[in-house]
Amino acid sequence: MSVHSKLYEGKAKILYTTDDPEVLLADFKDDATAFNAQKRGTILGKGQINCSISSQLFKQLELNGIKTHYIDSPSPNQMRVKSVKILPLEVVVRNIAAGSLCQQTGLAVGTILQPPLVEFYYKNDPLGDPLLTRDRLLLLELATAEQVDAITNLALQINKFLISFWWQCGITLVDFKLEFGLDSQQQLLLADEISPDTCRLWNTAEADPNRRVMDKDRFRRDLGNVEDAYQEVLQRVLQAVESQN
Amino acid sequence: MSVHSKLYEGKAKILYTTDDPEVLLADFKDDATAFNAQKRGTILGKGQINCSISSQLFKQLELNGIKTHYIDSPSPNQMRVKSVKILPLEVVVRNIAAGSLCQQTGLAVGTILQPPLVEFYYKNDPLGDPLLTRDRLLLLELATAEQVDAITNLALQINKFLISFWWQCGITLVDFKLEFGLDSQQQLLLADEISPDTCRLWNTAEADPNRRVMDKDRFRRDLGNVEDAYQEVLQRVLQAVESQN
Ligand SMILES: Nc1ncnc2c1ncn2[C@@H]1O[C@H](COP(=O)(O)OP(=O)(O)O)[C@@H](O)[C@H]1O
Ligand SMILES: Nc1ncnc2c1ncn2[C@@H]1O[C@H](COP(=O)(O)OP(=O)(O)O)[C@@H](O)[C@H]1O
Ligand SMILES: [Mg+2]
Ligand SMILES: [Mg+2]
Repeated sequence: MSVHSKLYEGKAKILYTTDDPEVLLADFKDDATAFNAQKRGTILGKGQINCSISSQLFKQLELNGIKTHYIDSPSPNQMRVKSVKILPLEVVVRNIAAGSLCQQTGLAVGTILQPPLVEFYYKNDPLGDPLLTRDRLLLLELATAEQVDAITNLALQINKFLISFWWQCGITLVDFKLEFGLDSQQQLLLADEISPDTCRLWNTAEADPNRRVMDKDRFRRDLGNVEDAYQEVLQRVLQAVESQN
Repeated sequence: MSVHSKLYEGKAKILYTTDDPEVLLADFKDDATAFNAQKRGTILGKGQINCSISSQLFKQLELNGIKTHYIDSPSPNQMRVKSVKILPLEVVVRNIAAGSLCQQTGLAVGTILQPPLVEFYYKNDPLGDPLLTRDRLLLLELATAEQVDAITNLALQINKFLISFWWQCGITLVDFKLEFGLDSQQQLLLADEISPDTCRLWNTAEADPNRRVMDKDRFRRDLGNVEDAYQEVLQRVLQAVESQN
């Protein structure tokens, strides 16, 4: 596979075109951003860690009947993916209240959300990724009503799988963000990444509200030991996958 | 009717108990606030104007089969209302895109919304009255699903009436905010006020985007001639009601 030109550089990944127009190469960076890129930094090893975790999770999801953009991982921080037209939506699934949900509603951090909340945000950095109601999403024509329903069902299915996968890792899945896209056949695929950058992950055995954090909140909230946490998550993922084979 | 004690002082009105436990007296103030009360001022005559406009609109709505809290207006800036338990929701109906909708979504001011948008915000000053999805509203138990559906239908009915009423005044109804409450029999009543404080009203004959504004946006955006605009709205309402009799 010969890599062609840089297609797009985002906050966490660079996308390159390849000789196959239906295939892109995603290069995972160590760059970390938070609060709509107002806070910037580096998490050493994050590129490789997030690429590896995402690769393992996409493979497991495919085995569970979820269609993803994942093809393979030619090197530790690179993933070959099916090129899709990303829907400009951040699809957030919440099992436990945290983050902006708590800030905006006054709900206590840690409130169990049963059934889980599926929320849509407008993936638009200049606007600050605002929360969308269903009517606003449809008004802005960010997706069709059928796509919204399909995505909601997929997100809940993915949540079911991920809850139990992370549970096997000794990790409580608080919430996570997904992106979906349409391939050349207009098929809906799970795209982007699933990693400690995009999930809230709490060490299940740890009660202390700061020490339990194993995700990008360590960076957002300056909790320290960011690299260690990411590394620990990867080790647990590899062990969980191992023990399944 | 003897007035008892002050029950609650809000940003625009003071509520007093009366000798009838099912009746409150609302005293409309000249105080004006905007941006979650960060901006404060006075609009001379506003109390009387908003009380008069609201009284006329509630009377007209009752004639059109909408149940409201309105009883009568014993003096120009006072309204007797049925005491209700206010649902902590700001119900916003939008016919034309303006305000926070445009800021949050990037939609151009003036975009026609057909069908109209009915939106729910959490009436909670410390939280800044955040936008609610249906799921968040239900999660917070701010109303039941049945109440949400009933309110949505009522809001659209009220919108139909108000569009044509304001149209007769030579005024384009851009958007407005409603509050609903439950009376002692758990009946859903339209409450609070309908006024240039709670509606975006554009002079239909005027194309200039600043000169056409006849509502609290004149105060919010320092457009000047705030009192004149409020006074003009009242005159047109009285004329429209007159011409109906
Ligand atoms: N399979 C794919 N095809 C095309 N674009 C993708 C695919 N997967 C992810 N993307 C997009 O790649 C871009 C780069 O990722 P990232 O660095 O995380 O960007 P961002 O700064 O928008 O979060 C994002 O716009 C993301 O939506
Ligand atoms: N019929 C009613 N019974 C009880 N409360 C009411 C009624 N109508 C309006 N209210 C409430 O009266 C309070 C005072 O009004 P206002 O000054 O506009 O308050 P705010 O500062 O909350 O906007 C508000 O909390 C409003 O919801
Ligand atoms: Mg990203
Ligand atoms: Mg008010």
